[in-house]
Amino acid sequence: MVHADSSNFAQGMSKKEVYAQVLEQARALFDGQRNWVCNFANTASLLWHAYHSLPAPSQSVNWAGFYFTNPTNPSQLLLGPFHGQVACQTIAFGRGVCGTAAEEKKTQVVRDVELFPGHIACDGKSRSEIVVPVLKEGKVVAIIDVDCEEVDGFTREDQDALEELAELLALSCDF
Amino acid sequence: MVHADSSNFAQGMSKKEVYAQVLEQARALFDGQRNWVCNFANTASLLWHAYHSLPAPSQSVNWAGFYFTNPTNPSQLLLGPFHGQVACQTIAFGRGVCGTAAEEKKTQVVRDVELFPGHIACDGKSRSEIVVPVLKEGKVVAIIDVDCEEVDGFTREDQDALEELAELLALSCDF
Repeated sequence: MVHADSSNFAQGMSKKEVYAQVLEQARALFDGQRNWVCNFANTASLLWHAYHSLPAPSQSVNWAGFYFTNPTNPSQLLLGPFHGQVACQTIAFGRGVCGTAAEEKKTQVVRDVELFPGHIACDGKSRSEIVVPVLKEGKVVAIIDVDCEEVDGFTREDQDALEELAELLALSCDF
Repeated sequence: MVHADSSNFAQGMSKKEVYAQVLEQARALFDGQRNWVCNFANTASLLWHAYHSLPAPSQSVNWAGFYFTNPTNPSQLLLGPFHGQVACQTIAFGRGVCGTAAEEKKTQVVRDVELFPGHIACDGKSRSEIVVPVLKEGKVVAIIDVDCEEVDGFTREDQDALEELAELLALSCDF
């Protein structure tokens, strides 16, 4: 199998099946490779193609990727690998949805970003967002960030799958 | 302007105008930000959206991004930020189009990858490729890699623009 096939998701699969493929392919891709940049880059591609194989609202995902904790400033997130349009380079811990997830070490599922206090609009088209912290030895080393152009784009099922992915990333990568 | 607008390319622009926007936006995004992961991530997005705003063959670009020299193994490239389908995690210097560009410190423009000795097929759909080394103090720190689903996808104009981008990245980022 060539690598590109990892991110080919068959049409008609359920969200559960799609996330199972994301996790299975991620485990296979991380086997023998602990570099976080490399593993995050492939994971952003997996997530992007996963969402776009699903019906609405998932196919309206317009950004999927990562921010990572700045090694020289541990209260700042820096933009990591992603798929989507150009994004803000830095986010302070505590600011917006990403910064809140990093500060509180807790997943944020935001039905409507326009109602979230202090929301940072990198893209005015984004209407809902999920942010999951990646914790290593109790510290936030990165966050998974996914934006959707529809309100209410993410459910408990997305949260559970992305939290499993965050655990896998923390275990599989050196930061 | 929100960040996403940096990667909105008006329809109908020439390739020259599109690359000028890529370079202008890259310079603006790198201003005050020297983290290479962050800057490569936004640049991959700029390139992806640039090619997809152009007519064929550029709109048939199916991968745009980076490999970087493994800090713990200086004869190996590791996958960096990109847009496109999942890709090979590691490439040895000297292997395939990317490895040849890294080894020879020289841009490779490959009309038909199937005729390139030792081509590494991360994606069987790719038919042509351009790879430009990013040199810092005489060493290859990374390569820019763009694949196209059409034969003969890249011209001298692509080479000149991507070499200018490679110089900008080398000057603007710490590795």
